[in-house]
Formats: sequence, C-alpha cells, structure tokens
Amino acid sequence: MSGEHNQLRLVRAGIDTYQQPVVYMHRDCHVCRSEGFTALTRVLARSGGREVVATLNVVVDDHLELDVAALSEPAWKMLQPDRDAWAVFSHPEPPASAAALRAKVFGQRLREADFLALMRDMVGNRLSDIELTAFVTACAGERLDMEETTALTKAMLAVGERIDWGSGVVLDKHCVGGLPGNRTTPIVVAIVAAAGHRIPKTSSRAITSPAGTADAMETMAPVALDLDAMRSVVEREGGCIVWGGSVRLSPADDVLIRIERPLDFDSDGQLVASVLSKKAAAGSTHVLVDIPVGPTAKVRSAAAAASLEARLLATAQALGLNLSVLRTDGLQPVGYGIGPALEARDVLSVLRNDTRAPRDLRSRALDLAGALLDAAPGAAPGKGRALACTLLDNGAALAKFLAICEAQGGFTEPTLAPHTRPVLASRTGQIQRIDNRRLARVAKLAGAPASATAGIDSRLRIGDSIQAGEPLFEVHAQSPGELEYALAYAAAHPDIFEIGASE
Amino acid sequence: MSGEHNQLRLVRAGIDTYQQPVVYMHRDCHVCRSEGFTALTRVLARSGGREVVATLNVVVDDHLELDVAALSEPAWKMLQPDRDAWAVFSHPEPPASAAALRAKVFGQRLREADFLALMRDMVGNRLSDIELTAFVTACAGERLDMEETTALTKAMLAVGERIDWGSGVVLDKHCVGGLPGNRTTPIVVAIVAAAGHRIPKTSSRAITSPAGTADAMETMAPVALDLDAMRSVVEREGGCIVWGGSVRLSPADDVLIRIERPLDFDSDGQLVASVLSKKAAAGSTHVLVDIPVGPTAKVRSAAAAASLEARLLATAQALGLNLSVLRTDGLQPVGYGIGPALEARDVLSVLRNDTRAPRDLRSRALDLAGALLDAAPGAAPGKGRALACTLLDNGAALAKFLAICEAQGGFTEPTLAPHTRPVLASRTGQIQRIDNRRLARVAKLAGAPASATAGIDSRLRIGDSIQAGEPLFEVHAQSPGELEYALAYAAAHPDIFEIGASE
Repeated sequence: MSGEHNQLRLVRAGIDTYQQPVVYMHRDCHVCRSEGFTALTRVLARSGGREVVATLNVVVDDHLELDVAALSEPAWKMLQPDRDAWAVFSHPEPPASAAALRAKVFGQRLREADFLALMRDMVGNRLSDIELTAFVTACAGERLDMEETTALTKAMLAVGERIDWGSGVVLDKHCVGGLPGNRTTPIVVAIVAAAGHRIPKTSSRAITSPAGTADAMETMAPVALDLDAMRSVVEREGGCIVWGGSVRLSPADDVLIRIERPLDFDSDGQLVASVLSKKAAAGSTHVLVDIPVGPTAKVRSAAAAASLEARLLATAQALGLNLSVLRTDGLQPVGYGIGPALEARDVLSVLRNDTRAPRDLRSRALDLAGALLDAAPGAAPGKGRALACTLLDNGAALAKFLAICEAQGGFTEPTLAPHTRPVLASRTGQIQRIDNRRLARVAKLAGAPASATAGIDSRLRIGDSIQAGEPLFEVHAQSPGELEYALAYAAAHPDIFEIGASE
Repeated sequence: MSGEHNQLRLVRAGIDTYQQPVVYMHRDCHVCRSEGFTALTRVLARSGGREVVATLNVVVDDHLELDVAALSEPAWKMLQPDRDAWAVFSHPEPPASAAALRAKVFGQRLREADFLALMRDMVGNRLSDIELTAFVTACAGERLDMEETTALTKAMLAVGERIDWGSGVVLDKHCVGGLPGNRTTPIVVAIVAAAGHRIPKTSSRAITSPAGTADAMETMAPVALDLDAMRSVVEREGGCIVWGGSVRLSPADDVLIRIERPLDFDSDGQLVASVLSKKAAAGSTHVLVDIPVGPTAKVRSAAAAASLEARLLATAQALGLNLSVLRTDGLQPVGYGIGPALEARDVLSVLRNDTRAPRDLRSRALDLAGALLDAAPGAAPGKGRALACTLLDNGAALAKFLAICEAQGGFTEPTLAPHTRPVLASRTGQIQRIDNRRLARVAKLAGAPASATAGIDSRLRIGDSIQAGEPLFEVHAQSPGELEYALAYAAAHPDIFEIGASE
C-alpha cells in the first residue's frame, strides 16, 4: 500500500527489550512525518525479504540521525539485516485475529479457526504486549470452556513443530506445579529410560515458581538443545530432559508465558492447552500428569483437581493421547531445596542413594515412575513401583541419568550460592502449616530462577518440633541486595512456617 | 531495604515512550549486577525526594557509560532531576493492589477499598502496562456489576482533584459517543451559558473514535487549561469547553484510556465510571447524558441502551448527582465532517446560522440544550427547546461561544487538509445503510485525530439518491501516505455506504 520511499537505514540500537521488538526513529525523520507515526505506534519494517512489526519509540534529541532507524536486539534478530541495509516502514494491517480477540474479551466463545488466527499472529509477532495481555486475561479463570480448551490446544499445536518418533510407545510425565521443590522429573525419566522405555521429556522454565525443571536441569547439563540434538540424545539413551522453548515445540506457549510470568497467573484452560500442546508436539503417546493438591499449592482442593483432571482427560481424548492422572499430597514442599541448583542437589542425592537424600522426593519419584511403567502397553499391572525401586537402588537410574547428561553435552555438579543467611524460629513449638506460596515468594525475591543458585533450603516438615532461635530455613542468594529483599519479606511474614504449641 | 550504594548518574535519553516511564542501564553496570536486574524488570528510581517505577531496557553495547542511567521523556518528567543528579535504584515493592488485580482477573467481585488501591497504584505509575491491560480486560463486557461500577467511580473520584463551585446549580452534558461527527457539545454549552447557566464542560480526546470534543474544540481555541484557568473562564463566561486531561480531574481515567485506545474497546462499567467520576469531580449537579442508539453506533440496541441507562442512573444516585438521559437516533453520522477540524467547521456553521449548516447537527444540539434547560431547577417544563432555538437564532449563542474561546486563549478559524480525494459510488441507487464503524475507521486511517485536519466529508444521508461515479464522500489527510491507507481501506470495503435499487 505504501510507496517504497519510506526507507531508513538500519542500525543496531544495542538495547535489550527482551522478546519485544522496538524501533527507534527521530521525531523529525521523513518516515514519521509522512506516515504520521508517534510514540508507541506499531510499525511494520521490511528488509531483505523479512519483516517485523515493532513498537516505535520516538527520539526527540540529536542522538539519532534523520535517515536512520535503530533496532532493539529482538527486532534486530528478527530482521537480520545485512550491513548497511535499508528498511521500508509502513503501518501494519490490523492483525487478522483482532476480531477474535475482541470477541473473547467481551465473553464470546471462540472456535478453532479463531484460536488459530490468534496463535498465527502471536508467533508472527503481530500482537502487541497489550493485545497479548488482553488475550491471557480474557482466557483466565473459568473463561475457556472444554471445547475452547481443545480448540486452543489444537491451534497451539498447529503453529509449532511436531516430532515424529515413528511407531511405538512414547512415554511422558508432567507435573502441574505449585509445589516448591517437587523436582521428580529427572529421577522419573532416568528410571523409566533405564527400564528400556522411550521418554523424550521437554520441560519448561519457571512461569510463576522459583524454578522449572529446565532451570534445575540446566545446573547439571545443557538443556537448550534443538530438535536434531534432542532426537539423537533420545535415540542413544531412550530419554532426555531438555528445555521445550529451544526445540520450539510450542512457540505460541513461549509467547504466552512471557505475559503470564509478570502477571503471576495462569488458568486451567491455558494450563491444559500449554501442557497438552507440548505433549502432542513432542510425539508422546502415553502421558502421566501429577496434580499436587493442597491449600497453598496451585491446585487447592479436591474439587479443583477434579475439574482440572476432567479438562485434561477431555482434551487428551480429542487429541488422541492416552492420559492418566496421579493426584499427590500438596500440603508442603518436597525435598530440601527450592531453587534451581538446590533442587538439582536433592535430585542427585536421591539418584546416588545418599542416606541423607530427601525421603519424600524419593518416594514421590518412585510413585510416578511406577504409575508410568504401569501405564505403558503390555505392562504387568501393579508391578511398576517395585521395578522402579529396583532400578533406583541398583544404580541403573543414576547411570542412565549421567549418560543422558553426557549425551546432552556433559554433566556438571551444581554449585551453591555465595550469600546465605538463616531465618530463625521466633517461638518454640511444632510446625503446623507451611505457606508454599509465600515460601516460593521468598525464593523468588532471593533471585530464583534467574540466579540459579538462589533459593531456600529447609529440612523442616509439618509435625516437626523446633526451638525458638533455631533455623526454620536458610536463604541463598547470588547478590547481597537480593538476600536483603528475601529476608525483609520473610521478616514481614513470620508465619510462613506456622508454629503451634507442642503436643 | 536496599543500600544507598545502588546509585547511577541520571541523563536524559531523549526518547519519547509516551506515558510509559523507561530507564536504560548498561548490562554490566554495578546496579544491574548487584540487584539482578534484567530486561523489562520493573525498577524503582529515587532522586531528590521524588520516585518513579520504570521499565528497564538493558543497553548491551558501549552507547551508555557504566555509571549512568538514561531516562525516557516520561520518566524524566516524573523524576525532574537536577543537573548532575544521581538516583538510587532498587526493586519496587509489589504494588499494594496486586491481590485485588488478581482477584478481579479470576472473576471475583471487588469492593471500594480494592478499587481505591488499584486507582492509587495506577495514578502513582506503580502498575506496568501488562497489569493495566489485565485490569481493563478483567472489567470488560459485563464483568463489573452495579455496585462495583459505583465503587470504581468513587475510587476514580478519590484519586483526582475535585472542583468546588460553591453553592448553586452546575449543569453538564455528555455523549457516550460512537456516532461520527456528533459534535453537539460546543453548541449546547454556548446556548446554555447564553441562557445564564453555569456549564463548566470538560471533554475528552478521542478514545476509539476519529475525534473527541477536546480534539475538535482545540482546532478553534486552546483547551489544555489548568484548573485555575478553567475556573476564571467559567467565572467570566458561565461556560467553558476544555480538555479534562489537563485539569487532571480524573487522572486514573487518563491512564486507563491509554490502554483502552490501542485495544479499541471500553465497557459499560468503565464507561460509566469514567463519565461520572469526571462529572462529580467537575462539581456538576445536573447532568444530561446523550445515548445515540443504532446498529453500528457504540450502543447498538434499545436493550443495551436500557442497561447502560440503568447503570448510569444507579451510579449517579450513589454519588448524589441529578442525572437524565436522552436516547437519540444513532443510525448514521451527524453533520458533514468526521475529524477534528471538519467537525469544528460544522459547529461554526450551525452557530453562525449558515444556510448550508447541517440541519441534523443543529436539531440535535437544540434537543439537548432544551432538555438540559428543562432539567435545571426552577425551569418552566417543556419550554427549554424554544428558548434554545431563540438563543441560537438571535446570535447570542455564537457571541457566547466566541467569548468563551477568547477567554480560553483566543479563537482560531479551523483550517482544512492539504490532501483530499473523493471516493465514488460504484452504482446508481439509494443509500440504504451507513456503516458508522467502518466510516470512522477510514477517518482514523486518514490520520484523525492525531492530524487535526484529517477525516471524512460527506453530505449523503440514508434515503438520498446517488448516481454511479458521483462522490460518496471525500477523504481529507495531512500526508499522502495516510490518504493512501484510508483510500485502500475504503476500496476494500465498498459497502460503507450501502446503495440499493431506487424506488
């Protein structure tokens, strides 16, 4: 539509705006003038056969020449301009999915074609953060019904890559999260792969928690493998534990997570779509989902768990996935550590059959591995847990885990943080309750997951006795500033571990 | 919480990021390192007793020194640093309203204290655009009930200034919009003030339309008056037509509008809160609300109008405002012009009793002025319209309008755009329907309201006959590029004026 005269020379601004492409132009440049561009206008830049829709920031002093447009790092990476390249700038067409977005915001039900239009615009970077946030919010709570959840899942699946493993069974497990330290995945994958099954596990980084499996695993081995690298690990070892974002199995999910993270919420519908689109894209045939239930876990009641389970089963059926659910106790944290490196330390101690290993983490991992072994076609029913236990105790799981790490690029022992400080009990008594959400908040304020060594370390469980002045937990941080934030928050919330009179 | 060592010298980045404060720091500066700041982190900057929460953009090349933080224009204006000032940077506390925001997103009802916390954080710039968008979306559609609407209105009122006019009646009118060209306000204010009433009118700029009253008025006189200047205009002339944003009667609304504008939606609850918080803040006692109803107007059906009217009346009563509603015909545009300067031209031709003045605009203005004169205490019922007609015909309204313009800073005749082109009828027949939304979209693509002279000019009304090849309307634009966009959109939508067989 626009003439090819709207050109500016491209330079690199050297500014990191995360995933958000930004372009800087001078207020008085001929493109701003002829196109009527003002601050925060969405502009389409085309150069060398590529294009990007970016947010305009207007330069009002003489830092920028009039014939130049500067690109922030994500804009630069998307456009990949040659040296001295020029770009043509114009108003982008309204995104094709604008009507669907508006309809959803106003409470209408969407169909698969609507979700597909939204996901295409999302992975094509044609939606602004404001539009993305409106979509996430409009789908929050109970605002996606079962059919919409399935439609969204299929749409997310359609805009990403999908792995074909050929014939045969592909096992997978997923935990809906919400329980600090519940890092069973590396142990389960090691056991199941040691049993001779195929389990190509892709994991996410933390959304609203102090650590995702990918964050914890990354302290022991590289996880940012592309699809070919992941495939060769699985062909060699039967299993892997890699970051889903770099195989780009669900690029739409990666965009949504960027918005959900600062808002600190996700919803049942989006959770199911996120999980199952990735499972289907990974080529899984049999999936076990762990739902921890507890008053301060992500799923707080049996009713909420039943509702989530029904949605998972209905969507899995629509996608042709064999899905089973294991509801687990979500009362309190699992293992000792909360935070990437601290959780990795616990995982290794279980795999090494260390006598000081957290018993709860071991027991949960065996339950899950057992259930998954039972779910595989042809398994002798009810024998899974015993088999899992044998493979863990005889060192086969540890050997498999180290072999997987080697195949992913090499094993590293996780390190601990330079700054640690205990938080002490203010009274003597017995631990009555643990507030998982606030405990996770302390770990996040301490820097987790961005700082891999940051987090919480605690051996206390509900029912344990403690004396006033003894440590409730230890805060680990990479920087003194972060340690202070976490400690200040902990001081302001002395009931994270609720201490009652001893019986 | 944080040590005072986290200091950087402040410089002005010279980058306009609209209302969004942004701070630029080098990736390797000691503050980023010690605080764990990364791209898009929200950071608190304190300097000279002022503070601002800004979004961090991370500089990754050598454009920025390591001991310096650069501020975007809005951040610079909020912090107002002295020459060579330093700022202390830290993580902001989570906004006090975070829990209320989350509750609303998940469909819970909020109380006045929740809305108050949200509005305080909003005007204190403590909410990110992502959080603001989540709030706007969570309140869209039917998601605010009557009580919440009242609570939101009171909260918006509480965080702004409120004008005290002393005793006596203060009249006001408002149109809920959605009808292109419906620029009755300047005429109504002129007539009502000429009748000796007090009518201090604050108007908004366009949210989703090609022109707001403030945009149109600004082509004839300054509208960005502060409270003192507005008061002296009203004391002298009885009335004014100023921009509500610069008197900051509803600063929360100004923030919300910034998010609603790119999303192109607002909702009943937010609309009522926006309108009535400003009316109450302006010290109005008697308010007339014009609700145009039509299939492509903002309010599309009698049922929707009734629902909006009920919400307006309930909230007005809770605030102690005397409110009346006039539902008007919203089938087609009003006047000839759509866009700030073109609408101003129509207003002037009505006030000047020009024989070519648009009759529909004149008639609607008289209806509204009459209803408002009738609503004033002590009025002889049903005599309002005749009085309005007299004051318009005898030139008293024109004289009053020009006097108000003078008092606001001086009258200017609006100018027309340098680039115009007609859109021609593709067939012969009779105008059956006019798509107000698409017509408004053409005006916006032509540059309205940012370009004051841009817009649409058309004398055709439903029922008029037209020959193929005759102009349906003329597009006005400030730049050739914008003219092209508007014409391309019009060409892609030939049924904006639907032409049927002549009878």
